[in-house]
Parts: sequence; structure tokens; C-alpha cells
Amino acid sequence: MKKLRRSARLVDMTQHLLAHPHTLIPLTFFSEQYASAKSSISEDLSIIKEAFETQGVGVLRTVAGAAGGVKFIPQTGDSQAREFMKELIGHLESPDRLLPGGYLYMSDILGDPQTLAKIGKLFASAFADQDVEMVMTVETKGIPLAYAAAAYLNVPVVIVRRDNKVTEGSVVSINYVSGSSKRIQTMSLGRRALPEQSRVLIIDDFMKAGGTIRGMIDLLQEFRATVVGCGVLVEATDVSERLVDEYISLAKLKDVDIKGKQIQVELGSYFQ
Amino acid sequence: MKKLRRSARLVDMTQHLLAHPHTLIPLTFFSEQYASAKSSISEDLSIIKEAFETQGVGVLRTVAGAAGGVKFIPQTGDSQAREFMKELIGHLESPDRLLPGGYLYMSDILGDPQTLAKIGKLFASAFADQDVEMVMTVETKGIPLAYAAAAYLNVPVVIVRRDNKVTEGSVVSINYVSGSSKRIQTMSLGRRALPEQSRVLIIDDFMKAGGTIRGMIDLLQEFRATVVGCGVLVEATDVSERLVDEYISLAKLKDVDIKGKQIQVELGSYFQ
Repeated sequence: MKKLRRSARLVDMTQHLLAHPHTLIPLTFFSEQYASAKSSISEDLSIIKEAFETQGVGVLRTVAGAAGGVKFIPQTGDSQAREFMKELIGHLESPDRLLPGGYLYMSDILGDPQTLAKIGKLFASAFADQDVEMVMTVETKGIPLAYAAAAYLNVPVVIVRRDNKVTEGSVVSINYVSGSSKRIQTMSLGRRALPEQSRVLIIDDFMKAGGTIRGMIDLLQEFRATVVGCGVLVEATDVSERLVDEYISLAKLKDVDIKGKQIQVELGSYFQ
Repeated sequence: MKKLRRSARLVDMTQHLLAHPHTLIPLTFFSEQYASAKSSISEDLSIIKEAFETQGVGVLRTVAGAAGGVKFIPQTGDSQAREFMKELIGHLESPDRLLPGGYLYMSDILGDPQTLAKIGKLFASAFADQDVEMVMTVETKGIPLAYAAAAYLNVPVVIVRRDNKVTEGSVVSINYVSGSSKRIQTMSLGRRALPEQSRVLIIDDFMKAGGTIRGMIDLLQEFRATVVGCGVLVEATDVSERLVDEYISLAKLKDVDIKGKQIQVELGSYFQ
């Protein structure tokens, strides 16, 4: 690698850090990469650190010592988060989202990469200190959210299936009761999809009574995993009994007037 | 916004460009953001351009004139792509991936955010000039690949369902014949999920005869959409009749010896 000027180093270090969040990068990696002294690399990092913090990109944590280095932790600041959620809530409250059964149409929101990235970063900020090793969700709608969060946490995703497809190998299946419909359903996960005793973050798009998330928590016991958190994009509030105790929501569906086509959405528990 | 030094500008412009690929950003956006002259911004951009090209991040295209600006196009260079695929093929050839029916276990690969990002960038490089407006896939395994490609193309994703869920609103359904099993199956897409006459890129994880992709192409006709490309991660080669003519694959499954537990994988059509 030929020696780079500071300006070129800054550009490349920025893209490298952004592409490897939650990863400890030894200073020697950069100093070898750019044939530069560690002192120059340290100066570069303090410039990047200040710019990232000023612009709300995240924080750079430096770990001293022989096994040390630098780690980029994506962080959405509180005011930035509230501003984004205010906009998202505006979209969610649009009356034409209302679907039969009091569900909300969210496929457009869950399809947009810029919106997803912001939601994913919010979840990653909320669970940044939980040493998450895996993100888990159930097919289908939670999948993009789980990947968005996992990208910022830099950990793998496991997807629980509602059927039992041949391409998973041997699977562990459980029955669970969907909280709202009270129907018994099945979910399954490939035996080799999740190492035993993993620290797992559960992500989903929507929670009513929480039966699906309860099912995932029960399924995780079969893998002797630790649930380090649950995050949902939207929770319904017209629920008599909640099957999950600890979770954060980014938005709360307060009131759905199907006849009058009115939807009222508020900030979720994460902001309280 | 207070005036920033060049070093801080470079860091922030780099992260902004990376977060907004395939988006024309007027120079005035940056000059107002940083209270800097357009000439300084132009110099910054040429530094970033050179660093991105040297490091294989992508290219910066500048568009001159009043409606001009700069656009970041993620690009994986050919040697970089081959090196990555060589590694991926090594993983794919591991004998313990073999599942009943000649399928390959790929959930770990499709769960890893770093691998997905590289595959997504490869697809985005391959279809960078096709003016893609939407990426489409069918649930479940194609979803992470579709999102990974869409993130680099900066366009939304639409997911075709194998059932007909209430939360989609009115849907368009078609029957199709799964090429390998010859069974008649159904796929459906919400009427409002895809604007009419969109330019659509189809992405999937695995293709045997191509029945599923043929189904998606037929479904897209109902939306008067244009299929601008099809990309699959792995294609099987032991197929008597292919139902799709134009597609690219990143890898080819050449030979599966179920008894001897041997898998042979080669570079796909994209590299030929």
C-alpha cells in the first residue's frame, strides 16, 4: 500500500469505519494500511470522531493498550430520533393505511431503504450496550427491520419460519398461541441457525398482545439463548393482556377509528 | 451550520455520499451545509473521488450545469469481485451444506451482514446502468439479498408473498408452475405495492428451472412493469429446460454428489 495523504486517509478511514460498526479495529491495521505513523492515525481518528459526533453519525470509542484500537458505535441522538419519528408518525397516521382488522399498511415504509436504515440505526442505538450476538425475527415483515438493525450492530440475522422448509435441515419447532386471534400456530428454526447460548435481540414490525414475540422467546429457550432485548416498530395499545414484559417500541398505535378512518400514533416506549 | 475545516468536510461528505448512493446531490447542498465555496467543495469531491476509486468503493459521477451535482455509484471492481466470490464459493462447497433434494444450506451466508453487503454491492454494480426503480423478490430467502442490492441502488423493495395476507390490502395473484416440482403454486403482490410501469430488478437466492422467477415476470406484467434485469446468487446447472432467458448468476452449482457428499461450485454467468 502506498503512503496516502491525510485527506485520502480520512476518506478511506471514514468508509472503513462506517462499513465495520461495533468492530474493534487495531490502530496498527490503519497504520499498516496507509504506511503512516500511529500518531498520525490517532490525529485522523480524532478528526473523524469530532465530525461523527457533530453530525450525529455515532461515536468512536478508543480502547487503549496492546489489544486496543478503535470502535465505531452508530448512535442516533435523541433530538434526531424524535425528529425522524415525528415524520414517520405523520406517514403512519395517513388514513389510507387502515386495513381490515385494525392493521396498518406498512409495506411501503418497510420497503424504503433510507427509512429502514434510520429505523435500524435507532434499534442499534437502543441496544448498543447489550453485547448482541444475533438478531432474530419471524418471517415476513420483520425481516427488513431485523437486517437493518443487524447491519448497524454488525451481527448475523436468524429468521424463524412459520413453516418447516426442506432447505433448513433439522429444525426445532414450537407451538404458540397468537395473542390476538387465539389460534395455535407453529414456528420453527433450523438447529444449526443459532449457536447455543447466544445473546439474541428480537426485532419485529408490529406487536399486539405479543404472542409471536412470546413464541420466539420460548423457542430461544430450546437453544439456551439469552434474550437481551425486544424491539418493535409499532405496538398496539388496545390490548387487555400483554404476553411480553420487557420490550421497547418506537411508536404506539393509540386509537384506530375504522368508521371515521382516523389513526392516532404516538412516540413509543423508547422515548418515555 | 458553522464553517467546517476541509478535514471535517471530507469525513462528513464521505459519509453523506455513502448513505445516498445513486442520488444526484447538487454542489449547492454541500456548499450551504458547510458554508464553503463551491470551488472548495469541488476540490473535496476530487479527493473523495480518487480515494473511492483507489479503494474500490465506487465512482463519483459529476454532472455539469445548473441542474448538476455529484452522484456516488457503488462499484465492485472485477478483481475484487472475483476474490470475494472465490472465498464465498469455498464456503458453499463445504460438504455439510448438502440438504435432502440437492439443496444447499445457505441461511448462514444470507444471515451475515458483511457478506450480504458485498453480494448486494455486486448486484448493484451489475445493474447500475439499468435505471432500476424497484427491486422485487419472493419471500423468504431472497429478501435479505433484495434489500442488500436495493440499499446500494437506493430504491425500494417489494416482496411477493406466497400467501395472501390481510395486511396487504387488495392483491393481484397469479398461479405459476414451480419448474422443478411441477406443482402449481400461487404468488401475490399488493396492488399498491408497485406503481404501474415501474422498472423492476428481480433478485433471488437460488434458481433451478426458473419457475419462480418466471412467475414474478408474469406477475409484473399485471402491473405493466418493465423487467430490467434478474439476478440470482446461485443457479443450478442440472436443468433440462430453463424458463427464464435473461439473468445473471454470481455462482453456478455444477455438480452435487449426494452419496459422496461433494459439491462443486463455479463462478456464475456474471463473470463470463
